[in-house]
Amino acid sequence: MPEKPKILNKKVLATTRLFCIEALDLEFSNGEKRTFERLARSGSNGAVLIVPMLDAETVLLIREYSAGTDRYELGLPKGKTEPDEPILATANRELKEEVGYGARDLVHLTTVSIAPGYLEHTTDIVLARDLYEEKLPGDEPEELEVIPWKLSEIPDLLATGECTEARSIAALYLTKEFLKA
Amino acid sequence: MPEKPKILNKKVLATTRLFCIEALDLEFSNGEKRTFERLARSGSNGAVLIVPMLDAETVLLIREYSAGTDRYELGLPKGKTEPDEPILATANRELKEEVGYGARDLVHLTTVSIAPGYLEHTTDIVLARDLYEEKLPGDEPEELEVIPWKLSEIPDLLATGECTEARSIAALYLTKEFLKA
Repeated sequence: MPEKPKILNKKVLATTRLFCIEALDLEFSNGEKRTFERLARSGSNGAVLIVPMLDAETVLLIREYSAGTDRYELGLPKGKTEPDEPILATANRELKEEVGYGARDLVHLTTVSIAPGYLEHTTDIVLARDLYEEKLPGDEPEELEVIPWKLSEIPDLLATGECTEARSIAALYLTKEFLKA
Repeated sequence: MPEKPKILNKKVLATTRLFCIEALDLEFSNGEKRTFERLARSGSNGAVLIVPMLDAETVLLIREYSAGTDRYELGLPKGKTEPDEPILATANRELKEEVGYGARDLVHLTTVSIAPGYLEHTTDIVLARDLYEEKLPGDEPEELEVIPWKLSEIPDLLATGECTEARSIAALYLTKEFLKA
């Protein structure tokens, strides 16, 4: 593996409530220099994506409006960690807020990056099992529809055209592999 | 499915070479109002992720420095479309630039979103087969290492900890499904 580029300089170009854009002046190990822009993680808060299994075969999806793409998306529940909140606690809280269930069994499957070329953000994927009904109030502008789906029928889910998020697709396949092993 | 929120107002908060941050004032169908920030797609240019198959079982990965996460990432080649460039042409050009192969057989598998809650960006996933050696000069600051991997061994790839990008993981599983069907 090559030696990592040196970060010669880091500059904040713009900051908004949600985003922080940085410019990085980089020098690669071969001497080449480049300036790359990226979105820095605002604060230290991460994001969690939850795979809630109602039973051994059935995952619970939600249908939620996505402002980035301006459409409703069918996918896995997710949310941001509060300051000092452990990952599994975030997963259980968001599950209660978005899906109306808590989980007695929470397993951290892996951490994925989203667009590592220009986003510092990563997402922790948490498998939630042994569910029980519990609803917490969230900050969602509208009630989310919860849709059970068979984990064996991911191709049919993708064929609907409603489930497009790479993180959700990756998490569903990773869960299949994990449950098979 | 609920009626889509009305976009009452759209405002550009910041623009840099690579990014454009927008604020959207939304009114949901139940009357709730929210202001959401998102990264708008700069211009009309999309992104393409390529799954280059050297033979029926072997995918070609690259190891590339990712400025967003400041680490080397093992994953699939990708790049941005030039103005008026068809998706499959982008795929073949990036394949030649990053991997040193062209493809006689290119298939658009699907379009994925990345973080639809706050990114407008989508990525087209293109399967590339029937490869031939051809290198085009790219704008990469350093030569990319090309690493063949068996498509049957995705769990081992993930276990290296070097392949974390949700888009690459999703594309590898989608290719497995496509080739099985």
